[in-house]
Amino acid sequence: MDDIAPKRRRAGGRAANPRRNRGEVLDQMPWRIPINTDRPIEPLTEEGVAAIHEGAMRILEEIGIVFLNEEACAIFAEAGCTVEDQVVRMGRDWVMEMVGKAPREFTITPRNPAKALPIGGRAILFGNVSSPPNYWDLSLGSKVPGNREQCANLLKLTQYFNCIHFAGGYPVEPVDLHPSVRHLDVLFDKLTLTDKVAHAYSLGPERVEDVMDMVRISCGLTDEEFEAKPHMYTNINSTSPLKHDWPMIDGCLRCIRRGQAVIVSPFTLAGAMAPVTMAGAVAQSIAEALSAIALFQYVRPGCPCVIGTFTSNVDMKSGAPAFGTPEYMRATQMTGQMARYYGLPLRASGACTANVPDGQAMWETSNSLWSAVQSGTNIVYHAAGWLEGGLIASPEKFIMDCEMLQMIQRYFEPEVVATGPDEIAVEAIAEVGHYGHFFGIDHTQARYETAFYQPIVSDWSNFEAWQAKGGVWTAERAHLIYKQIIDGFVPPPMDEGIREELEAFVDRRKREGGAPTDF
Amino acid sequence: MDDIAPKRRRAGGRAANPRRNRGEVLDQMPWRIPINTDRPIEPLTEEGVAAIHEGAMRILEEIGIVFLNEEACAIFAEAGCTVEDQVVRMGRDWVMEMVGKAPREFTITPRNPAKALPIGGRAILFGNVSSPPNYWDLSLGSKVPGNREQCANLLKLTQYFNCIHFAGGYPVEPVDLHPSVRHLDVLFDKLTLTDKVAHAYSLGPERVEDVMDMVRISCGLTDEEFEAKPHMYTNINSTSPLKHDWPMIDGCLRCIRRGQAVIVSPFTLAGAMAPVTMAGAVAQSIAEALSAIALFQYVRPGCPCVIGTFTSNVDMKSGAPAFGTPEYMRATQMTGQMARYYGLPLRASGACTANVPDGQAMWETSNSLWSAVQSGTNIVYHAAGWLEGGLIASPEKFIMDCEMLQMIQRYFEPEVVATGPDEIAVEAIAEVGHYGHFFGIDHTQARYETAFYQPIVSDWSNFEAWQAKGGVWTAERAHLIYKQIIDGFVPPPMDEGIREELEAFVDRRKREGGAPTDF
Repeated sequence: MDDIAPKRRRAGGRAANPRRNRGEVLDQMPWRIPINTDRPIEPLTEEGVAAIHEGAMRILEEIGIVFLNEEACAIFAEAGCTVEDQVVRMGRDWVMEMVGKAPREFTITPRNPAKALPIGGRAILFGNVSSPPNYWDLSLGSKVPGNREQCANLLKLTQYFNCIHFAGGYPVEPVDLHPSVRHLDVLFDKLTLTDKVAHAYSLGPERVEDVMDMVRISCGLTDEEFEAKPHMYTNINSTSPLKHDWPMIDGCLRCIRRGQAVIVSPFTLAGAMAPVTMAGAVAQSIAEALSAIALFQYVRPGCPCVIGTFTSNVDMKSGAPAFGTPEYMRATQMTGQMARYYGLPLRASGACTANVPDGQAMWETSNSLWSAVQSGTNIVYHAAGWLEGGLIASPEKFIMDCEMLQMIQRYFEPEVVATGPDEIAVEAIAEVGHYGHFFGIDHTQARYETAFYQPIVSDWSNFEAWQAKGGVWTAERAHLIYKQIIDGFVPPPMDEGIREELEAFVDRRKREGGAPTDF
Repeated sequence: MDDIAPKRRRAGGRAANPRRNRGEVLDQMPWRIPINTDRPIEPLTEEGVAAIHEGAMRILEEIGIVFLNEEACAIFAEAGCTVEDQVVRMGRDWVMEMVGKAPREFTITPRNPAKALPIGGRAILFGNVSSPPNYWDLSLGSKVPGNREQCANLLKLTQYFNCIHFAGGYPVEPVDLHPSVRHLDVLFDKLTLTDKVAHAYSLGPERVEDVMDMVRISCGLTDEEFEAKPHMYTNINSTSPLKHDWPMIDGCLRCIRRGQAVIVSPFTLAGAMAPVTMAGAVAQSIAEALSAIALFQYVRPGCPCVIGTFTSNVDMKSGAPAFGTPEYMRATQMTGQMARYYGLPLRASGACTANVPDGQAMWETSNSLWSAVQSGTNIVYHAAGWLEGGLIASPEKFIMDCEMLQMIQRYFEPEVVATGPDEIAVEAIAEVGHYGHFFGIDHTQARYETAFYQPIVSDWSNFEAWQAKGGVWTAERAHLIYKQIIDGFVPPPMDEGIREELEAFVDRRKREGGAPTDF
């Protein structure tokens, strides 16, 4: 789709391993629901958990949360909370009673039931980067506003990689589409290019309802069937400190009333929108999240809710957000402990601060992803493709991140740590003895094709072989793979009648003017 | 020292943050002994630990270990083990009795007592890359055989960074120095350019004895004082499968007889020198290590020993070793469980497969470093500067790795997860309320300078600011920092008399011909 910049061209076409069968560019890992068998890392003592809980409860009782949503305020008042000028104060007994109604686990079933997602428990699921306004790739070499083609290409990556379990928000904001109809076009692309769990932005009633209808159509369901169980979800952020905006709460209320799932992810940057101390930032985040979840449980007891964490620190020199820092890791782990304390599934992120897919990007993302693992996170947002604190989406970064996600998936496969007699292999060791090697023996031959993780973009050649292939650095290899995947992409099958119904829905809603843009 | 390649020159001099005071190029973290407060990740059940132990014991009892060292064979025979053609079979009761004599914790004290290292317990210590035959940096842009100047520069980085606790083997092999005198020149450089714990290669009696004498001189000690406690260490690898070479065992025996520490690190590549199954590779590694440690404990009960792990997998397509893989991580964690089972301190590594300091290098190294953390590793070899499976040393990689090491150090600082009233900060949250921010309040102002990790090579600018500084990728920023550190390097103080004694020792040993090179 783009010209190749000189840096890329230098690499030649020899970098990747081109099995150019359509749809089989890579020998990737199979679709699987990774089960996190590691005991979570828990930096908080029992007293620490109690202190953060106490802080969150005091925030809810004494300071209150602003709900810029009259319907929500009326519901809180009905439930016996104190509501003054949209500041809602709520007692801890009521909050805990409501939060206690939320399910610990539930399932979201998209149009392809084979891609249904168990949310909660020990499952850990990964989604694409969501919502960057800008796009960067190596052939452009610069940061540009996102467009529909880039968005669609990133959706193709979302579908292509088995290690990506759900299609989150727009992988890049397509600003070439008018905001009134953007959701219609992107959701059409998302629902036809992928068959994975999809998401609606809570940005006004029309958008949320349109997306729910489109997901319903994609699943071939009646309203009643759609509302019987979760087929999609919305994700909202609070407006820290201590506020929930109108469209976010409205969207969640619409989702839960139609049986769909919600994720509440406060964005508490320590030192800016939250205390400079990480435990304080976590306490505030917990208060903001629980206030909304309590509301939703009051409205629809037992509705599927996930608590999100997006607590990190700012760079105190510039005030800019930083991700994948030690403080970010600990905040994620602490929130994991709190989520288990409240019995709620947890969402975290695969975030970084870096501007390009280089070494810094990968150590920051690695820190974020491992802290998601260590915290017992169930849903990892932005797990592939995120740069510049979420302001840039990059296909190279997407593919590089998928290597890390596949390694985490492999890391959790039980066979890696199996200790039966065949794995301890004393007989094989005796057979090889003191002067042989293991390459040729039966024990090795019977297992070598599946014994170890096989990389997709990592180059395990020695320096000389790597140099002979052009000496291509990782981001450039990822660029070539990206092109090959897009070239060979085959959309998942869709019933022609469903496709026509989706098209007709989009046409009708466009004729009606789409969604208002004056919110 | 080198011309700057075009790629580097493009960056201009604006990339790093140049506080060019001598010795203060970076605002780095202070010297500290990081204490690993995380509970280890333990993939093995109790039965799994028992199965690996049983496998290791069967290897020692039924298959035996080859000791290509007549003195060792004689000692084993004296101890009641079965010795046939240098194959030593030893009963588990004897092995466990001997291993039980090893201390769980001990201290190594270098010439600067402020840099003494507690080995074992919850301390986690990092050392420079050791023993690559080749060197690569961005200004060269190619892989070249190492030389003394490169080796010295990497020793300067070893000294400069507070997060590097010890000077391991040669950070690059200086092949311009004749093997007969190489150890004399490099140890002179190491002992004058650093004041941290040093290491001797077990490559022949003369080398080990020379290094022990040089360390003794650097500490200003008599033989008796030197031998009273550990001031240095040696690290040996077994020759897998199931063999210990003559010089390795000889060097360890010399070290323990003079009170110095030893690390025994089998290099068991699953699928090549060990079973293709990770538990089998770990069991073999344990057997190889325990056999040597049992010998040393028989010779000197209570001598300081560390068990090392270097178990990874090969790329089954090429047979080349791979590092930082999921299998590597799990093997490291499993060995951690076994080390605790035997009551021995653990050594692991910060290894990767990548050939250049790019994204792949950093996710692989990050995997290795986090698995060191997760396994409760006490000594992390090759923690900075390693590329190409250990065949290349790179100063850029060294600096990039130090960013990760500093983040791990910060991650373990108790204040990050403190939950006192000042950290929960309900009053600060009340003060800011619903419509303010936290930048200006006293709670933030009193803490912001030390609240968060400050990076050394990461660039946290947004894209536009980063672009205005030249759009420099991480490895290029690291190169500039490397140059600045070398330019401004100030060696640690050394008593002039001690320096002269070291010089005289080197001169005398050179006149005597150095060490034989016919082993």
